[in-house]
Amino acid sequence: MRNDHNTPGPIAAIISTGDELVNGRTVDTNATFIAERLGAIGIEVRSVITVGDYPDRIVWAWQHSLAHAEVVISTGGLGPTADDLTSESVARVAGTELRLDETEAERIRQHFQKVGRPMPENNLKQALFPVGAEIIPNKLGTAAGYRVVVPLNERRPIAVVLPGVPREMKAMLEDQIIPWLLRQAPEDRCTLSRTFQTFGMSESALDEALEGAIDPDKGRLSFRASFPQVSVRVTVTDRRTHAERRLEELAQIVRERLGAAVIAEGETTMEDVVGRLLREHKRTLAVAESCSGGLVGNRITNVPGSSSYFVGGVIAYSNELKQRLLGVQQSTLTSHGAVSEETAREMALGARRATGADLGIATTGIAGPDGGTAEKPVGTVVIALAADGLDSDNVRSRIYRLWGNREWVKLLTSQVALDWVRRYLLGLDPLTSVFGMRGRKH
Amino acid sequence: MRNDHNTPGPIAAIISTGDELVNGRTVDTNATFIAERLGAIGIEVRSVITVGDYPDRIVWAWQHSLAHAEVVISTGGLGPTADDLTSESVARVAGTELRLDETEAERIRQHFQKVGRPMPENNLKQALFPVGAEIIPNKLGTAAGYRVVVPLNERRPIAVVLPGVPREMKAMLEDQIIPWLLRQAPEDRCTLSRTFQTFGMSESALDEALEGAIDPDKGRLSFRASFPQVSVRVTVTDRRTHAERRLEELAQIVRERLGAAVIAEGETTMEDVVGRLLREHKRTLAVAESCSGGLVGNRITNVPGSSSYFVGGVIAYSNELKQRLLGVQQSTLTSHGAVSEETAREMALGARRATGADLGIATTGIAGPDGGTAEKPVGTVVIALAADGLDSDNVRSRIYRLWGNREWVKLLTSQVALDWVRRYLLGLDPLTSVFGMRGRKH
Repeated sequence: MRNDHNTPGPIAAIISTGDELVNGRTVDTNATFIAERLGAIGIEVRSVITVGDYPDRIVWAWQHSLAHAEVVISTGGLGPTADDLTSESVARVAGTELRLDETEAERIRQHFQKVGRPMPENNLKQALFPVGAEIIPNKLGTAAGYRVVVPLNERRPIAVVLPGVPREMKAMLEDQIIPWLLRQAPEDRCTLSRTFQTFGMSESALDEALEGAIDPDKGRLSFRASFPQVSVRVTVTDRRTHAERRLEELAQIVRERLGAAVIAEGETTMEDVVGRLLREHKRTLAVAESCSGGLVGNRITNVPGSSSYFVGGVIAYSNELKQRLLGVQQSTLTSHGAVSEETAREMALGARRATGADLGIATTGIAGPDGGTAEKPVGTVVIALAADGLDSDNVRSRIYRLWGNREWVKLLTSQVALDWVRRYLLGLDPLTSVFGMRGRKH
Repeated sequence: MRNDHNTPGPIAAIISTGDELVNGRTVDTNATFIAERLGAIGIEVRSVITVGDYPDRIVWAWQHSLAHAEVVISTGGLGPTADDLTSESVARVAGTELRLDETEAERIRQHFQKVGRPMPENNLKQALFPVGAEIIPNKLGTAAGYRVVVPLNERRPIAVVLPGVPREMKAMLEDQIIPWLLRQAPEDRCTLSRTFQTFGMSESALDEALEGAIDPDKGRLSFRASFPQVSVRVTVTDRRTHAERRLEELAQIVRERLGAAVIAEGETTMEDVVGRLLREHKRTLAVAESCSGGLVGNRITNVPGSSSYFVGGVIAYSNELKQRLLGVQQSTLTSHGAVSEETAREMALGARRATGADLGIATTGIAGPDGGTAEKPVGTVVIALAADGLDSDNVRSRIYRLWGNREWVKLLTSQVALDWVRRYLLGLDPLTSVFGMRGRKH
């Protein structure tokens, strides 16, 4: 069983306020942003509570958040209209009242003067703050934020109140809240982490491979599956002078245990890695896609600058196009079928020939839900790679049995195809690409 | 002051569980999805609580959610690893224990047998459920969900536990939870809704276009932006005998106000609509993709059965491939550039010629972040369609100025390209395809 507090910093909680967040109209990206920024400085977020614009619910959220956190950061509910209720709720929880801040009131008046519009009287509401609040200026909008201590039995947790507009909230968090939080931390502690992107092992297989690798007193492992990649993160908290060395020690253990399943360190994707390798090795790539339908090309071209190594290729969805544009033989299709190693190899070779690229990667398969047979069920996929130095005739191929629905089969096909390119460029046998992912964390 | 309960159905709460949600690695889109679906059937969400994978915090979230809601829907924490703790926490809150369900255990064993991998022993954890739970099958993954009554003083709120994988969660919610919730409503009342998928208008433009259209006493409107589509849902709650007629009345108002911006009714995508139209009109389609890099083909082939109307095409990312495979003239590229109406038209015509398809759709543009010029900034995209009956030479084209990052420009490009095919098949001028989306609401 995991213990209840892993990080050295104070415990934080986040509150997101707004009807649009609980009726499904808006995804709450503010909480994610704040949580990531806090985590990066070693502050753990214990809870995120989201409520609509009702005073009782906002008070409820504050009471429960303040009960287990030393810092509670809230966004939303600071606008000028009747359903903006954060400040009066905070005042209620803090057992105090709202008071007009003349400086802020003047700033709001001037803002309206500057933009040449009359100020609706209710805008002055944005100059009301709980007694004792330290105002956090908002350079990008009219809603200032604030910090205020909320006496709660013996404790004195701090409420940090920010507007809900992401641009304004982010600027205030980065420029004012994060520096303030860092000033609160003990001088000599810091939290560092490193992320490994993997492919070829399921989350549970990674879990097993890393069992006992990291002493829980030294560091912490976490996993995130973003199908078809799984990332592993190792985090340490230590004295400033020790943290970096310890992180590197633990990272080395992860590297050794996971081997070639690690496709990269840091926040990156398979297509980024493949792009970087193609660029480094000065090779160009072409695709011949049947069952992946353009997905391999689409992923490769999601990487900025991919035009320097990706020439394009053929989406050969019909058999006719496999022949017309890639030169697959009619006899090959007749005797082995479109989903066969023979066809895939001719497609990969055809992609090189038709485009002049250094590497040709081909996919053909049955993505389903229809089209499967007893011999070649849905999920049967063939990958082939044509490139200098592969086997005797510069091409390799393999049949896979993939699973999942149509989109998963396509996605997994594209991932294996990209992993073949990666392994070839690293000087590994492409056929060592394995996989057993389950997709996102359940 | 607003009253505290606006909708006719029961009060709900949502819990999202997972370290990745409170450390900023993953944006919680599950809660938004669930909130929107509940809102559409008249169930109000009072709170969303997000916690990491710690038993005490999960229990805390359940206790506080169950205290003010009749139905609590949770996602996450149902995986096979040690940090998947939802079920044991729910059992603790419900004052019961976990028990192995043999049927589920067998299903999991068979799943691993089918994919030909040994089952890690810890996967059997996914067959443990609180005593009294009604299992909700998961057709797309190994983590089944369940419903269980949690006796709480005099109340008997219901816990609904779903996996965190969005695809699996969504299918289980749509197919099993929503129908079950609808069956809980009083016998003579029912809630019906209809969804319109739109393209070409921003959420605020839709909001304006529908202003005053629906009497709030008769029905409710809700919006969901899933870039680049925005869906509009109209919902009525009424006596069984009246609901259907009223819904149709309101749906007709929406249809009239939104016109051709509605691409379909129901849960469907642009590629589904285009596929259905191609099939109905017995036409085949080929692509010639430059800046979209394979995305148009990828989206078309996400639709099962697309091989009956999609032949494939060319990803002509380099200028050389535009010439080699699509027959674009060197002189056209030299005098007008790759991103020009002239090049796009030759690409679209070339796609038809090279493949023999009835329609050829071409994209070329500057997806960024590099490659823009003063005359053709990042986001400049040209779409061309070649098909019988278009203008004098069977091809039309248009330059667009799109916005957003590289992936948005690509996505929007593919959406406009598909909308051209849709409009052409409907007998409309493809150039009437407009759009003014801003992306997500702040």
